[in-house]
Amino acid sequence: MPKLWNETIEAHRRAVHDAILDATVELAAEHGAMTVTMSQIAEKSGIGRATLYKYFPDVPAILLAWRDREIATHLARLVEARDRSDEPGRRLAAVLDTYAGNQRDRLRHHALLGPELGALLHRHHHATDAHRQVTELLRDLIADAARSGSVRADVPPAELATYCVHALHAAAALPSAAAVRRLVAVTLAGLRTP
Amino acid sequence: MPKLWNETIEAHRRAVHDAILDATVELAAEHGAMTVTMSQIAEKSGIGRATLYKYFPDVPAILLAWRDREIATHLARLVEARDRSDEPGRRLAAVLDTYAGNQRDRLRHHALLGPELGALLHRHHHATDAHRQVTELLRDLIADAARSGSVRADVPPAELATYCVHALHAAAALPSAAAVRRLVAVTLAGLRTP
Repeated sequence: MPKLWNETIEAHRRAVHDAILDATVELAAEHGAMTVTMSQIAEKSGIGRATLYKYFPDVPAILLAWRDREIATHLARLVEARDRSDEPGRRLAAVLDTYAGNQRDRLRHHALLGPELGALLHRHHHATDAHRQVTELLRDLIADAARSGSVRADVPPAELATYCVHALHAAAALPSAAAVRRLVAVTLAGLRTP
Repeated sequence: MPKLWNETIEAHRRAVHDAILDATVELAAEHGAMTVTMSQIAEKSGIGRATLYKYFPDVPAILLAWRDREIATHLARLVEARDRSDEPGRRLAAVLDTYAGNQRDRLRHHALLGPELGALLHRHHHATDAHRQVTELLRDLIADAARSGSVRADVPPAELATYCVHALHAAAALPSAAAVRRLVAVTLAGLRTP
């Protein structure tokens, strides 16, 4: 059964990979990201140093992989929120709500890793690519909702998507989950047919 | 007439100061900000090197002074826009419009100086202080407009100000002045009483 065997290996690799990322972020949060060493990571994730080096060449590479996993998780959440409903207006509302939640999540992670590292990881090219993916996902949802009449049709969907992405970045600056819900409601109100 | 004499000196100092900033930004735009030297700046602004050093110790100090002047200009424009009308709703619309214009201005300047320097100057602490001043100015205008009934009263003015600032940052990502006008209209629509 070679296929199953390969799947088992792949699942094992994935589990080790995830354990390394989790251990690194925990260490970074405890001691500061700039001081974490490969030895500490090997110890904390319960694997040998030699094995660790088969997965990652150094700590920055692990942090970037962690960042990529965060981005993938955030995107997956948006897609999941979108697919929970069939009605265009409700889909859009669910995705905006989830996107605002992601922003607060990101802020928490940046606080965890410290501002320097947060800025570094944020600048990484994947962030830009993810930004484009989110904007396109929103643009398509907005276009659907505009066709169904629940969103204004006097502004191009791509512009409205750009508006949503920026407006919801405010979620990271708000003090409570209730304030974030209000922000989503205000942002949605901007989209309504005047 | 010592007072007049002092005023003359102050006006002269201000003119030299501004000429230095203008010359530096022109040189930065021509040759790249990282390569500009104090000698080039002295030559371009038509003053001696010794005089230049009485004003600024090095090129980064000049670029930061230029950034401060930009921020002051942007804030002054907002205050001017606010004071052009007495009606709270119209005041708010004028300020949001001006703020969106400032974002496009900033983008142009960042493009002029290159992304590295743009990011560096952007991180400078004054940017944060200016951000707070803008948010407070908007919060007060929104509170006035909410009292007069032209803005929703179900969301705290400070939260609505945060929403506006973030939403209008989208202006820097939009392709045309017409798109920016639509963005301002959409952002204002979010503020309206539901």
